[in-house]
Amino acid sequence: MKILGIDPGTGICGFGVIEVSANIKPDKSSPAPVNTLYRGRPKMLDCGVISTPPHTPLSDRLLDIYESMHEIIKTNKPDIMAIEKLFFVQNITTGISVAEARGVVLLVAKQENLPVFEYNPNQIKKALTGYGHAEKKQIQEMVKQHLNLKKAPEPDDAADALAVAITHSLISHLEQ
Amino acid sequence: MKILGIDPGTGICGFGVIEVSANIKPDKSSPAPVNTLYRGRPKMLDCGVISTPPHTPLSDRLLDIYESMHEIIKTNKPDIMAIEKLFFVQNITTGISVAEARGVVLLVAKQENLPVFEYNPNQIKKALTGYGHAEKKQIQEMVKQHLNLKKAPEPDDAADALAVAITHSLISHLEQ
Repeated sequence: MKILGIDPGTGICGFGVIEVSANIKPDKSSPAPVNTLYRGRPKMLDCGVISTPPHTPLSDRLLDIYESMHEIIKTNKPDIMAIEKLFFVQNITTGISVAEARGVVLLVAKQENLPVFEYNPNQIKKALTGYGHAEKKQIQEMVKQHLNLKKAPEPDDAADALAVAITHSLISHLEQ
Repeated sequence: MKILGIDPGTGICGFGVIEVSANIKPDKSSPAPVNTLYRGRPKMLDCGVISTPPHTPLSDRLLDIYESMHEIIKTNKPDIMAIEKLFFVQNITTGISVAEARGVVLLVAKQENLPVFEYNPNQIKKALTGYGHAEKKQIQEMVKQHLNLKKAPEPDDAADALAVAITHSLISHLEQ
């Protein structure tokens, strides 16, 4: 199963695609121990950011995000989208801007027939580190470990998008 | 000039289309007094709301808004869009939901090549009533008067959308 993770934003919108093997039920007739459940370690297929120029009209930037999102989905053919949910906003202006981008991304998901799963920042932190208030650095370290990478993906927004995708694989028990 | 006013929202998104005659410069050779500037009173062409069912996935609702907005623009052929700006949000959850719808509406404006003008609630109140903290009822009364209607358009969200369109006509001096 391919999961497209999204860290939404108008200025920078992070995306990351991972592939996780489906849960394979133990086969009692096989020589493997019966309690061995094979669940694949996620593999990173793609990641990056859609960045839009700051001094252009908002509607131009949203069209950029719209077109890039369609392209990313057409290229990577994910099965589902996992996206960060805004549930508490410290900076209202930033929150509004993130929500405008989120609206466009969710629209694209529907147009591309992708089921959407939303996770709030605490769920993501808890899923990856076991602690709901983990630091950004810890999240990035865990992304690196989960995906068996030599270093954490850059920029941060791409790593954050991968973190959302990994969260989905962990919460929906695709990964052990 | 046709102005499409938008009061954005995910549950209910108000729209209103008005037509305002362009500013006609005085013609000194004509018999009319030279200081007579003819500026048209705005005329209401269309108004209504896009309402989306509450217990459906957000991405379904955003697609509804996307498709309805394209249809409204194709039917009414406005020259510009005037949209309410979120500049201070008392209820963060509502604010996020309004911003998600706004993102989709602004995207459609770009796809339909409509220039976008944004006005915050205080600008709208001030333009219509002369007072930045006017009550909702006063705004609706002024919408009725500006458009020479027998009663204020319903529901409120449609009247609010018309108020944004009228604000643009007043601020850009299309209306006297």
